[in-house]
Amino acid sequence: MFYRLVLEYDGTDFAGWQVQARGERTVQGTLIEALEHLSGGRARVTGSGRTDAGVHAEGQVAGVALERDFGPEELMRALNALLPADVAVREAHRAAEDFDARRHAVGKIYRYGVWNAAVPSPLRLRRWHHVAAPLDVAAMARAAGLLVGEHDFAAFQAAGSDVVDSVRELRRFEVGGQPGSEIVLECEGGGFLRKMVRNLVGTLLEVGHGRRDAGSMTGLLASRERGLAGATAPARGLCLVAVHYPESPGDAGAR
Amino acid sequence: MFYRLVLEYDGTDFAGWQVQARGERTVQGTLIEALEHLSGGRARVTGSGRTDAGVHAEGQVAGVALERDFGPEELMRALNALLPADVAVREAHRAAEDFDARRHAVGKIYRYGVWNAAVPSPLRLRRWHHVAAPLDVAAMARAAGLLVGEHDFAAFQAAGSDVVDSVRELRRFEVGGQPGSEIVLECEGGGFLRKMVRNLVGTLLEVGHGRRDAGSMTGLLASRERGLAGATAPARGLCLVAVHYPESPGDAGAR
Repeated sequence: MFYRLVLEYDGTDFAGWQVQARGERTVQGTLIEALEHLSGGRARVTGSGRTDAGVHAEGQVAGVALERDFGPEELMRALNALLPADVAVREAHRAAEDFDARRHAVGKIYRYGVWNAAVPSPLRLRRWHHVAAPLDVAAMARAAGLLVGEHDFAAFQAAGSDVVDSVRELRRFEVGGQPGSEIVLECEGGGFLRKMVRNLVGTLLEVGHGRRDAGSMTGLLASRERGLAGATAPARGLCLVAVHYPESPGDAGAR
Repeated sequence: MFYRLVLEYDGTDFAGWQVQARGERTVQGTLIEALEHLSGGRARVTGSGRTDAGVHAEGQVAGVALERDFGPEELMRALNALLPADVAVREAHRAAEDFDARRHAVGKIYRYGVWNAAVPSPLRLRRWHHVAAPLDVAAMARAAGLLVGEHDFAAFQAAGSDVVDSVRELRRFEVGGQPGSEIVLECEGGGFLRKMVRNLVGTLLEVGHGRRDAGSMTGLLASRERGLAGATAPARGLCLVAVHYPESPGDAGAR
C-alpha cells in the first residue's frame, strides 16, 4: 500500500535525510526501520528531497510503499509510538501507486533563523544561527527581492554539483526581524538546487554585514560562478517548512 | 568585586541550578568553574533561586563575588567565551557588596509551555510538555484567575517541604493559546515555594482535561493539602523568564 507522510524532525542528531552507506543515523533510515518493524516486510521510502545533516523539517514529505495495509490514522499512531522523539509523523494520507514525493512536488517553503545579538542564546542553540554583529536587514531584504524570479541559480548551488539545468523559480524571499533579536528569512520556490537556500542565506548575510552590495545580486546570478557567492550558512538555522503537491494544497497545515 | 549577572540556559542537560554533592553537572557549578578559571581565585555564586533539573531560564539572576576586578562588559564577554553553549550571560552589572540575589528579589516571572496536539512535536521537544488530548483553555484560565492573590499555597508546595510560612502573592497567572497548538501559562509573583509553579500547572492541566472543576481552586487553597492538588508538571515546559529587584526594574530585558 502507498502513503504520503508529512514529517517533522529536529535535524541536530541526524546525518541528514538520506540513508548513508556508512550506516549513520538518518531520518530516512530511521523511518524505514520503524516501518519495517511495523509491517513485518520491506518498506520503501522516498523524500521530497534530501535535507542535509543538521537541517530541520516541519513539513518534509515522504512517499511510502508497504507490503501490508494500514489505515492512515492507524499508521501514523503506530509510527509515532515507534519513532524516536526527534522525528514524528504529522499527517498520513493514502497515495496513488505512482506518487513520487520528489518529482511531483511543485513548491517548497524554507525558513532560516538568525539570532542577531551580541550574546549567544542557549535556548535558540539548535535552530538559530548566531550572528553577533548587527545586520542591515533592509539591505538584506533588498538583495532578497532581486533574487526573486526565474533565474539560473548556478552561482548558489553546492560546489561540484552536476545538475544540467540550474534554472529555478524563486517565488518569494522575505527577510524580517531586527538586530538585537530574531531575523527570519523565508523563501518559497518551485525547486531548489543542492545547498541553494544556505548559499542564498550566506550571501545575504554578507550583504547584512555590509561586505557586499545588495544591488550586486543581479551580476552574481549572471556570473553563474559559485566562487563569487557567499559562504554556505550553517545547517542549524534551516528548516524545510512545507512541500506542495498539485493534489494536496493543504499538505503543510497542521492535521 | 561584586556583580549581578542575568543568565539564559537550556536546562535539559543540567541537574538543576544548585551545586550537587554528587558532582553532577549544574548551572551554578558550571558558572563557578568558568569564573574561577577566569579570575584565578575563588568565586562565590548565589542564584535568585534553585531551578530544578530540566527547567530552563531566560533571565535567572546570580550574585557573584570575585577576588579580581573586571569591567562588567569584559566579564560578560570572557564568560561567554568560556561557558558551554547551553548557558550564557545576557547581562552583567556591578552590584553592591551586600547584594543577595535570593533575598533581594521582589518578583519573578515563569512561563510554562504545553504543546497541545495529537502528534508530538520534535522541534518543541526540549521546551514544551506534550499533552495529546485537547485542553479546555477557558476553564484553565478561570482556575488560574482564582489562584491570583495572596494565599497560603501549601497545597502546591513540594511534598516534604518544611517552609514555615507558605503564604505567597501570585500577582498574575495567564493562560493563552488553543488546542491543536501551543498553550502558554505565564505567572508572576513575589516569590514561589519549591515546585509551586509546576504543581499549579499540573493542577490546571487536570482542569483542562475536565477531571477537576475550575471553581475547586478556592477549596484546594483552603485545604493546604499537597495530596489534593494535581501532579507536578514535567520540568521541560518551565522557564524562569525574569527576576525583578527594586534597584533594577529593567533587569529582564535584552541588553
